[in-house]
Amino acid sequence: MKRFGLLHHPKISASQTLAQEVEASLRSYGVVAWQASAWDEAEVLRQAPGTDLLITFGGDGTIVRTARIVAAHHLPILGVNLGRLGFLAELQPAQVQDKIEALVDGQYWLEERMMLYAEVKRERRIVHSYEALNDVVVSRGRIARVVRVETYVDGQYLTTYVADGVIVASPTGSTAYSLAAGGPILEPTLFNLLLTPVAPHLTVATALVLPSTAHVHLGLSTEYEASLTIDGQVDLPLVDGDVVTVAASSNVCRFVRMGERNYFYKTLLERLR
Amino acid sequence: MKRFGLLHHPKISASQTLAQEVEASLRSYGVVAWQASAWDEAEVLRQAPGTDLLITFGGDGTIVRTARIVAAHHLPILGVNLGRLGFLAELQPAQVQDKIEALVDGQYWLEERMMLYAEVKRERRIVHSYEALNDVVVSRGRIARVVRVETYVDGQYLTTYVADGVIVASPTGSTAYSLAAGGPILEPTLFNLLLTPVAPHLTVATALVLPSTAHVHLGLSTEYEASLTIDGQVDLPLVDGDVVTVAASSNVCRFVRMGERNYFYKTLLERLR
Amino acid sequence: MKRFGLLHHPKISASQTLAQEVEASLRSYGVVAWQASAWDEAEVLRQAPGTDLLITFGGDGTIVRTARIVAAHHLPILGVNLGRLGFLAELQPAQVQDKIEALVDGQYWLEERMMLYAEVKRERRIVHSYEALNDVVVSRGRIARVVRVETYVDGQYLTTYVADGVIVASPTGSTAYSLAAGGPILEPTLFNLLLTPVAPHLTVATALVLPSTAHVHLGLSTEYEASLTIDGQVDLPLVDGDVVTVAASSNVCRFVRMGERNYFYKTLLERLR
Amino acid sequence: MKRFGLLHHPKISASQTLAQEVEASLRSYGVVAWQASAWDEAEVLRQAPGTDLLITFGGDGTIVRTARIVAAHHLPILGVNLGRLGFLAELQPAQVQDKIEALVDGQYWLEERMMLYAEVKRERRIVHSYEALNDVVVSRGRIARVVRVETYVDGQYLTTYVADGVIVASPTGSTAYSLAAGGPILEPTLFNLLLTPVAPHLTVATALVLPSTAHVHLGLSTEYEASLTIDGQVDLPLVDGDVVTVAASSNVCRFVRMGERNYFYKTLLERLR
Repeated sequence: MKRFGLLHHPKISASQTLAQEVEASLRSYGVVAWQASAWDEAEVLRQAPGTDLLITFGGDGTIVRTARIVAAHHLPILGVNLGRLGFLAELQPAQVQDKIEALVDGQYWLEERMMLYAEVKRERRIVHSYEALNDVVVSRGRIARVVRVETYVDGQYLTTYVADGVIVASPTGSTAYSLAAGGPILEPTLFNLLLTPVAPHLTVATALVLPSTAHVHLGLSTEYEASLTIDGQVDLPLVDGDVVTVAASSNVCRFVRMGERNYFYKTLLERLR
Repeated sequence: MKRFGLLHHPKISASQTLAQEVEASLRSYGVVAWQASAWDEAEVLRQAPGTDLLITFGGDGTIVRTARIVAAHHLPILGVNLGRLGFLAELQPAQVQDKIEALVDGQYWLEERMMLYAEVKRERRIVHSYEALNDVVVSRGRIARVVRVETYVDGQYLTTYVADGVIVASPTGSTAYSLAAGGPILEPTLFNLLLTPVAPHLTVATALVLPSTAHVHLGLSTEYEASLTIDGQVDLPLVDGDVVTVAASSNVCRFVRMGERNYFYKTLLERLR
Repeated sequence: MKRFGLLHHPKISASQTLAQEVEASLRSYGVVAWQASAWDEAEVLRQAPGTDLLITFGGDGTIVRTARIVAAHHLPILGVNLGRLGFLAELQPAQVQDKIEALVDGQYWLEERMMLYAEVKRERRIVHSYEALNDVVVSRGRIARVVRVETYVDGQYLTTYVADGVIVASPTGSTAYSLAAGGPILEPTLFNLLLTPVAPHLTVATALVLPSTAHVHLGLSTEYEASLTIDGQVDLPLVDGDVVTVAASSNVCRFVRMGERNYFYKTLLERLR
Repeated sequence: MKRFGLLHHPKISASQTLAQEVEASLRSYGVVAWQASAWDEAEVLRQAPGTDLLITFGGDGTIVRTARIVAAHHLPILGVNLGRLGFLAELQPAQVQDKIEALVDGQYWLEERMMLYAEVKRERRIVHSYEALNDVVVSRGRIARVVRVETYVDGQYLTTYVADGVIVASPTGSTAYSLAAGGPILEPTLFNLLLTPVAPHLTVATALVLPSTAHVHLGLSTEYEASLTIDGQVDLPLVDGDVVTVAASSNVCRFVRMGERNYFYKTLLERLR
């Protein structure tokens, strides 16, 4: 018997209502479903083992959050879009009920997306580690002053960015913050790291596309507070001397896709407007 | 009898030494000179009346700070560069002694630079106002989330930037933060406002050059802390609903120039490296 | 008795029809009108003296062409838009008949736009000169190889662009080719020159905003053919060693405006999409 | 017995002299060497079979030309740099003699670079095909007017660029024309296609990084002449309706490397200046 998890957005009541309707439909197909807030990390992790598929009801942010929480479980994720037109969701609310039978029958394909793994070293000890779907960002804190980020790739010194921040993005994240900072768009199933500075001063502003095997070391030097931001959702204050290492994660994110394989190109321009 | 003010950088001891040497030379030409830290705003303002000319010993930051402090006094400012190659200083330390006679004799020209005037409205009351030489920036605070800035020019709605921040720069400021954010360079004696978004999401990223008569209203909406930054030196926390108005100041900054009128083009490329 | 000129687009039959309808209406208000193709430069110039106002029926291209032809006559130009949404036209076809009375009564304001003047020097002789409303472009010819453009401003060497081309634009032209090349948008009634390189190699890519008094010298060096393009409409083959000088024209273009003074900001974003 | 080919630049006499010196040294190590101009495609192709390694004496252009000529032979290429600091050469002239023994002994590693394959279809027939190391560009011809390029990826419509041109670059080509047009830098051993528009009008300007399996179709529509340019070296006039298809080539280029594996990051910033 199949077991699905339904994750709603705690502040969008329509997402809970829709999740309940989907739960009822799934039951009629013999699928057991559990429901939780996508913000309730503990509950999601408790339910994850033995779950076959997750459906999120929210915007891109809800999908990104879910991907990060269940990274180690490799659960297929289907996004139902209750936000504005995003890049990650597969279905609009009006389409869901019509697709449930196909979903239960496994009539879909899985799209694997690279994830990122970041570690923060302070005084040579790893003090934090994170999974990310979109991006890992080292940037200025409250005070609008540049940070200096000494950047190494695979142990080789590249440059010292003097900038608002430095983004290491996955291909999925190339359409998020990196795009705003002037970076290119990467086809989302590629396995690459994308290095994009934010508002760099008198240094090379060009984004850099790296192999998925690359290890990026970002050594922070700043007189003011700075921060590490994961997927634009999780923040950690950084201090002068911290080193953040980013590489491809050993986990991947799996999105349930029910349309054509080349859907990305089809909707790209529309989504960019 | 002429009276000059000599402003040193409190953390650069060479700047104090040089200021003392210059003071001695000035005295031999019959010029009275006073010396103060460029950070000691109260002392600088106390001495400003009756002063004919200010010499700063520091980097571009020291000049910008001085320009802001004495904005209302229209004092000529001569920058002696003790920082890295900047855009504002006129003399290198090794040149100063040779130029003192010319300086005392008034053998120089004055270059006028537009300044900015900004007001912060909170609940319809003006709670702060500022002069700026380079730029007025409304941007995110500590948390790396976008702010939404509803932007009007002369009462006409332009757009709502969803971005890390929005810069209103003077021509002088076009080579500072705005340049890092992708803005154009304006010849520094122009009288224009330059509007440049920082890392804008899915909106028009192009910088906009406005007449000096333009009034720019920036209405902030954010769920997190945000800040106003003046010349990258003064910060004010902003809250949701704050409105920042920026226009040309009625004051101008006057730089003492001893070289050719078209010096800006000559050294521009060199300074950009 | 007033005399208006009506200029249609020779390849858009709707533009001739509309011009005839407007001619009939004008006659009923006692205005004499003549009609010509906007491409028929000789006829337009023959009719210009003694004409009070020109109405163009076409797209932005028709307006730009007209402005250039009648530059020396300072005739007010009203653009009726038969192209896609542009930046220059004032009225949509459906609005014209309702506005004719106001137009005849002089119920409009005139918006002055800076024009450019360019000279081509070959072996120290001026071989061609041009007026332009939008831009003067020195660029590669048929072969897709870079040109080298030694650039001086007011006699001062600035840089040598190694690029596909170099654009000198007016504020009006800032929303044309310069925008595509990454330049800023200038409020259209400003008097400035805008210098924007196209695809520059390993040189400063930033656009430069200059005073209206600036003289820009572009010295071409290329092993292949190159060309000078005026407003994207007139082309002249250039050869190695040619020097193109661009400055503000002594003529201005006058657009008839019937709406608000700050219309530019209102429609800017819409026009950029 | 090993057999090396030495390719000089026909217009740089130092390159012939150096090639002769290297030939003498190689002979002393028992290596047979032949010498030819890198421009003499017929001779290079005649000699290629049975050749173990090619050494080019020139700039990046000479290496690119050689790579294209011998694409089907997969010959290792060692670039000796006689141009300005480029991205592709391995040795400076002064280093060559010291490295010959190592070279003859096979003390080097081979770096594989993706190449591109392009076909031109006219009236449904393939009229030309090309290999490229850097890039395939569809762009305007002599007249500085935009071309319209209807772009498909893997059969899926992406967008219609209205631009000076569209570049499809390899990772190697990401530091050539694409960089000037605002594209990102790709680590050169990646296998990806990079799609970068040149001066696009009111369309998405962001570069797009595609999988190496992608097929890009560029359908040209223009009222004027247009051209196809291969590696900035070979040109073909295009006409309205032509379709250019670009994909990864089945051939790769092999560069002889004698230094560290991560050399690219080490010298990147230096090379960009």
